Amino acid sequence: SEGSSESLDYEVIENYAYRKEQAQRGKLYVGYYVAVKWFFALLIGIGTGLAAVFINIAVENFAGWKFAATFAIIQKSYLLGFLVYILINLALVFSSVCIITQFAPAAAGSGIPEIKGYLNGVDTHGILLFRTLVGKIFGSIGSVGGGLALGKEGPLVHTGACIASLLGQGGSTKYHLSLRWLQVFKSDRDRRDLVTCGCAAGVAAAFRAPVGGVLFALEEVTSWWRSQLMWRVFFTSAIVAVVVRTAMGWCKSGKCGHFGSGGFIIWDISGGQDDYSFEELLPMAIIGVIGGLLGALFNQLTLYISYWRRTCLHKKGNRVKIIEACLISLITSIISFGLPLLRECSPCPEAEANSDIECPRPPGMYGNYVNFFCSKDKEYNDLATIFFNTQDDAIRNLFSAKTFHEYSAQSLLTFLVMFYTLAVVTFGTAVPAGQFVPGIMIGSTYGRLVGMFVVNFYKKLNIEEGTYALLGAASFLGGSMRMTVSLCVIMVEITNNLKLLPLIMLVLLISKAVGDAFNEGLYEEQASLRGIPLLDSKPKYQMRTMTAKEACRTQKVVYFPRVIKVADLVSMLRTNKHNGFPVVERARNGESVVIGLILRSHLLVLLQSKLDFQHSPMPCDLAGGSIPIRHNLGEFVKPVSSKGLSIRDIHLTSDDLEMYIDLAPFLNPSPYVVPEDMSLTKVYNLFRQLGLRHIFVVPRASRVIGLITRKDLLIEE
Amino acid sequence: SEGSSESLDYEVIENYAYRKEQAQRGKLYVGYYVAVKWFFALLIGIGTGLAAVFINIAVENFAGWKFAATFAIIQKSYLLGFLVYILINLALVFSSVCIITQFAPAAAGSGIPEIKGYLNGVDTHGILLFRTLVGKIFGSIGSVGGGLALGKEGPLVHTGACIASLLGQGGSTKYHLSLRWLQVFKSDRDRRDLVTCGCAAGVAAAFRAPVGGVLFALEEVTSWWRSQLMWRVFFTSAIVAVVVRTAMGWCKSGKCGHFGSGGFIIWDISGGQDDYSFEELLPMAIIGVIGGLLGALFNQLTLYISYWRRTCLHKKGNRVKIIEACLISLITSIISFGLPLLRECSPCPEAEANSDIECPRPPGMYGNYVNFFCSKDKEYNDLATIFFNTQDDAIRNLFSAKTFHEYSAQSLLTFLVMFYTLAVVTFGTAVPAGQFVPGIMIGSTYGRLVGMFVVNFYKKLNIEEGTYALLGAASFLGGSMRMTVSLCVIMVEITNNLKLLPLIMLVLLISKAVGDAFNEGLYEEQASLRGIPLLDSKPKYQMRTMTAKEACRTQKVVYFPRVIKVADLVSMLRTNKHNGFPVVERARNGESVVIGLILRSHLLVLLQSKLDFQHSPMPCDLAGGSIPIRHNLGEFVKPVSSKGLSIRDIHLTSDDLEMYIDLAPFLNPSPYVVPEDMSLTKVYNLFRQLGLRHIFVVPRASRVIGLITRKDLLIEE
Ligand SMILES: Nc1ncnc2c1ncn2[C@@H]1O[C@H](COP(=O)(O)OP(=O)(O)OP(=O)(O)O)[C@@H](O)[C@H]1O
Ligand SMILES: Nc1ncnc2c1ncn2[C@@H]1O[C@H](COP(=O)(O)OP(=O)(O)OP(=O)(O)O)[C@@H](O)[C@H]1O
Ligand SMILES: [Mg+2]
Ligand SMILES: [Mg+2]
Repeated sequence: SEGSSESLDYEVIENYAYRKEQAQRGKLYVGYYVAVKWFFALLIGIGTGLAAVFINIAVENFAGWKFAATFAIIQKSYLLGFLVYILINLALVFSSVCIITQFAPAAAGSGIPEIKGYLNGVDTHGILLFRTLVGKIFGSIGSVGGGLALGKEGPLVHTGACIASLLGQGGSTKYHLSLRWLQVFKSDRDRRDLVTCGCAAGVAAAFRAPVGGVLFALEEVTSWWRSQLMWRVFFTSAIVAVVVRTAMGWCKSGKCGHFGSGGFIIWDISGGQDDYSFEELLPMAIIGVIGGLLGALFNQLTLYISYWRRTCLHKKGNRVKIIEACLISLITSIISFGLPLLRECSPCPEAEANSDIECPRPPGMYGNYVNFFCSKDKEYNDLATIFFNTQDDAIRNLFSAKTFHEYSAQSLLTFLVMFYTLAVVTFGTAVPAGQFVPGIMIGSTYGRLVGMFVVNFYKKLNIEEGTYALLGAASFLGGSMRMTVSLCVIMVEITNNLKLLPLIMLVLLISKAVGDAFNEGLYEEQASLRGIPLLDSKPKYQMRTMTAKEACRTQKVVYFPRVIKVADLVSMLRTNKHNGFPVVERARNGESVVIGLILRSHLLVLLQSKLDFQHSPMPCDLAGGSIPIRHNLGEFVKPVSSKGLSIRDIHLTSDDLEMYIDLAPFLNPSPYVVPEDMSLTKVYNLFRQLGLRHIFVVPRASRVIGLITRKDLLIEE
Repeated sequence: SEGSSESLDYEVIENYAYRKEQAQRGKLYVGYYVAVKWFFALLIGIGTGLAAVFINIAVENFAGWKFAATFAIIQKSYLLGFLVYILINLALVFSSVCIITQFAPAAAGSGIPEIKGYLNGVDTHGILLFRTLVGKIFGSIGSVGGGLALGKEGPLVHTGACIASLLGQGGSTKYHLSLRWLQVFKSDRDRRDLVTCGCAAGVAAAFRAPVGGVLFALEEVTSWWRSQLMWRVFFTSAIVAVVVRTAMGWCKSGKCGHFGSGGFIIWDISGGQDDYSFEELLPMAIIGVIGGLLGALFNQLTLYISYWRRTCLHKKGNRVKIIEACLISLITSIISFGLPLLRECSPCPEAEANSDIECPRPPGMYGNYVNFFCSKDKEYNDLATIFFNTQDDAIRNLFSAKTFHEYSAQSLLTFLVMFYTLAVVTFGTAVPAGQFVPGIMIGSTYGRLVGMFVVNFYKKLNIEEGTYALLGAASFLGGSMRMTVSLCVIMVEITNNLKLLPLIMLVLLISKAVGDAFNEGLYEEQASLRGIPLLDSKPKYQMRTMTAKEACRTQKVVYFPRVIKVADLVSMLRTNKHNGFPVVERARNGESVVIGLILRSHLLVLLQSKLDFQHSPMPCDLAGGSIPIRHNLGEFVKPVSSKGLSIRDIHLTSDDLEMYIDLAPFLNPSPYVVPEDMSLTKVYNLFRQLGLRHIFVVPRASRVIGLITRKDLLIEE
């Protein structure tokens, strides 16, 4: 996995060609550039919104048909229903795992660790391709529709990021879908801004939580975040909200099949408890602690399992992956159908006057109180209500208010243990998989358990088990993913209840703190397992006592002279794997001076085009402005859809090798530099905050030419 | 105003003393340090919450008594009621303006431009003192209770910041309230983090909008924002929410007088329209445009008036300020009492069955439909409903749903013009004044006007004028303050209706874009008027073509040798006003090398203490570690409560002047440096993103000692 990721650079490479282009283009071009950025934000919003609608409609319809068919058949024979249920699930999961293994391997999993890596500055190969996008969309329909213990929210974030990145390169070059006039974005920086928008759009679409989307992007990208970007991200999220709402309005009239009755997360709990008394803070804190513990355990278990999968199982080829996924689908089906069968039915509670909850609910409808393998008419099966159901509906049932004692503690415990195990085992199979919804399922189960005890213990009227389920869900997500503000806002937005905000905050604070005591967050663990080198926002403790010089070890620096023989260049590029090289010029008086940094990728482009080869080792005159620009900036852009050039791809004749090349016009003339004895903490901050790829460590300066203070930067436009 | 502000430094000065202290203190101290930070976050939350509760209770009680008394008297005589009303208002405003002018001049205005400046890196003298805190709290009770066209929300943000800053220095040294063991925060960085917390707490308390508070702080501080800080800010806001909620619960039982019936912003509109049809998007966009125009106009007018006040009126002394405020109070009282008198009363609408709104409302109660100078029983005065009322209640009435045609277009227009004028005139008087609530008043008035037309035009049932009023409020605030995400979240949190989020986003996007076409945001305009040099998050356009060297002009650099004669030092400090100086050491081989940066403030501390004076010009041996540390870090901390030392405060004997001082242990050994021809855009990003105060411009390096890449920074803990 070493070779499969490469760093991104948030810096603008101000080489000669760039500066020329800037000088030619006036303020009007800036306007055009900004307009295109906004236009792209609009397109990202629309695209992600539509993708989300499509996935949701498909999943709800597949799952709806499945449950409708099964319910119809079990009226006659449970065995036949069981078989049909298993087969439909198997078919869906099989299609999903086939898409992933045969067509888009990068679309497996949630994609969030990779996107997090991308926003942190590491480009993992293949995550933002067109085929990944397609695989993600269709794969997640299969895996979620097939009833596995995973969700569709994580994949939607990845989907949004893919859409953004593809737009940024003006379409997919491989599939000839690109548009020339949209290719204005030539730097990693622009692309990363777009992916940030896409990522926010994905969250906004997944949860219908526009503010949550903005905050999610923000929390994961706290470096290089600027207010203009915030503003644009915000716009994208708003567009997503409008698109999704429009689609839902359109579906209300029944044009979308089963979609509309379940679908699209909004677990409205605004009818429930929205106040709390002080005694309740203790059980709520306990929920926080449980969430921290179970979340940390989840991270640890999935880490072990993923490690085992990567190192043993998945090495054996695609067939193993397919068999594994099918086996898990089988087990999941058997458990979710079989366990409720073993459970005794409970009598329906007496209907309250003002409650419109039916018991048992009519078959084929959505709601609480499922009649499943019950002998009498006024009975329901509490385990089936949550187990034998789509996850969205199960959560809705767990969150529901005014349904005291619907679940027995025994059922909830059974469900908790089984589902937790399933979620752990399913994690890491070769299908698109999100952890949000399973997390909410797990959390709301133990939350509701605690809630049952609280109701029994305090015997107050306004305590709702559903509210505790919600807090449980927040606590588990907090304990596992360790997000704070964004998670809090997402929870509020999906439950549509602002009044519980302080409670959710409290629970999240506790569960995150508890979880942090054991291990890192889910995404960080997974990223480090996959070899994505994330830089934390906080420098490590021992950096305080280290200097920059100590950090860059004793390695000899590989540098180039300004004018270099092509043969030398090629041999040096062959003998090391560095991606950036200082260029040093030797002045006539014998003193040397560092004139900039040149990237390996740019050198390879130069070598391939051969346009700049010259016969004499004389440097050209940059100041005179006489040298023609033979490349436009676009040529230097690394294509997203391939790994970029490698030195092995370049074929030069022996004549070429005897030529020279002047690197001065192509280098970045002013990379950031730090003096050798600066403490590593400071270097780290510089690197992380500005999103850099290379920093030069140089000797102390011999003199100071000037000081820059705030006053010097207050230039009037 | 030149001398009254000074830059802050977000950098940690890693001088010898600091490094020694770090080395002595182990991981345990880091733990203690973090624990204190969290404890402070808790205290800031509690303090700000309590301050907010106090202010709200006081204001509501004063205003409640005032209106109750006036209403009681006008049952007999309108003239007498008028007089009483005027006198109470005058007394309150007079007390407020006296507090400000005599005791705490820095507490005038909203304080947000200054806090924004502080978070941007500029310390305005006196804004975070204990007396400012006291003045702000009591002053805003007077000015808001006295019925002026201003709000208490801006001052609450300032209050939160003051509380945070005072805690950070361990209490007020001047009033002997300080605690030694709390003084762990010794750098600008720590203090700025605390003020960020305080600022968020202020917003959270002012609007009961915890997430809005976090986002407000975030939007104003997008540089140097780290996830750990976000996490702590979030915690502070949650504490505020809990404190405020507890206090309100306690007040519900009637222990707080008039408070509880009005008080504490939550204009719950969850009963109203929460859906929209596509035709409505056009009038909503129009609201956005109007908001942009009126907001930009407001900024421009207040800028002119403030400029005139600063340059002419307020120079004439405190008496003028007092007279001015009293005069404005008089005018406001006359208009708000007199205009409704001139307005004809309207007949009450027929009561709907399911509506519990009474018409006319009983005197002394809160609600719509005020009976004021009406002849018949079933009549109400629509102008009095909004004008002759506390602002909170007026807004509640404007936002209210199910009250079609309560207001005539004529009344709304009259109110809009009069209140807009009053708000502009009141802005800048010497009382604590927020612009949020007046902005909401203005915005919701024209919003409701547009809503009335929409209701008449489309004749649909589910359109509510109150929703349009809300959008109008958002648009005016967006057009004036130009905040986006935070404002949006605040609007959602105060109206407790998540479903309108996309609409609010849309309106804000439009109004901000329109406003930006004319001028800068209210706070930026005011900051630049007050000489607070804010650095925008975006570099200026012409910086692209400038280099670092060009920015720091042709000025000769003032630098010090490592060991300097005290007399020389003093004379150099006297002859210039720079705040940082490079220190250059001349090695034995004649080459010079820059060994660091020393701050003026540190030099002054050294000169005053005289401890480090030595007789010989020999440098001491730092590497040997033999030199004793004669200062602890705390001595170098600039006290918040004074301007810090000046060279004029330092008295040295002629013996002292003959001594030498070695600067090496006290300087910052590795300030950030940039090569001379780096483009100013990059320098700007470095300066702004890292929150620096000084950057050295140095010649290009002669060689590269090493490169730092991501790999080098991945150190395992
Ligand atoms: N030109 C160079 N000369 C000497 N050492 C270098 C040079 N460039 C990089 N290094 C060192 O080699 C190591 C690996 O460098 P490399 O360029 O592969 O960067 P990286 O951290 O792998 O990131 P990426 O390859 O994604 O840019 C780092 O420790 C770095 O200090
Ligand atoms: N040691 C110095 N030698 C020469 N010029 C300097 C020196 N220090 C600062 N300057 C220049 O003098 C001007 C004012 O510097 P000053 O130190 O007053 O900073 P400032 O921008 O006012 O910020 P603050 O005073 O708040 O730190 C700036 O343009 C700066 O480039
Ligand atoms: Mg590498
Ligand atoms: Mg200055």
